[in-house]
Amino acid sequence: MKVRILVSLKDSVLDPQGQTVRNALHTLGYESIKDVRQGKVFEIELEGVSQEEAAKVIPEISDKVLANPIIEKFSWQILEKG
Amino acid sequence: MKVRILVSLKDSVLDPQGQTVRNALHTLGYESIKDVRQGKVFEIELEGVSQEEAAKVIPEISDKVLANPIIEKFSWQILEKG
Repeated sequence: MKVRILVSLKDSVLDPQGQTVRNALHTLGYESIKDVRQGKVFEIELEGVSQEEAAKVIPEISDKVLANPIIEKFSWQILEKG
Repeated sequence: MKVRILVSLKDSVLDPQGQTVRNALHTLGYESIKDVRQGKVFEIELEGVSQEEAAKVIPEISDKVLANPIIEKFSWQILEKG
């Protein structure tokens, strides 16, 4: 099973990395870009787990390893079943 | 318009960051995780651009600023229109 997990800063948390990217884009003339938020994406290959087990494991590893739950949120989706 | 851009290493490029995460997960007992690839995600707010203009601007800024086309690939999707 292939799973994609998106980890991004909570909306209430400042994102200096994203702001730097936005400023760089403005300098290059892309004035239409009003806001940039940067996060992480993990694509994970799981073997021998059911969808129910994945639904337990993914939030667990996201909270423990992939994201910092104090300042980050995560979402996930299954890309390939089986 | 809100757009999400995913930037990840090309399949042929080693991902030591992802491997470190996988090893950490194995150490914690998550043996079902066979592979981890880590990438970046950008959520971008565009103003005053049509969908056609976005389809021109997004690949442009991805190639110039967000990704390194030598070793990275990108994909994008519109999250919110208008």
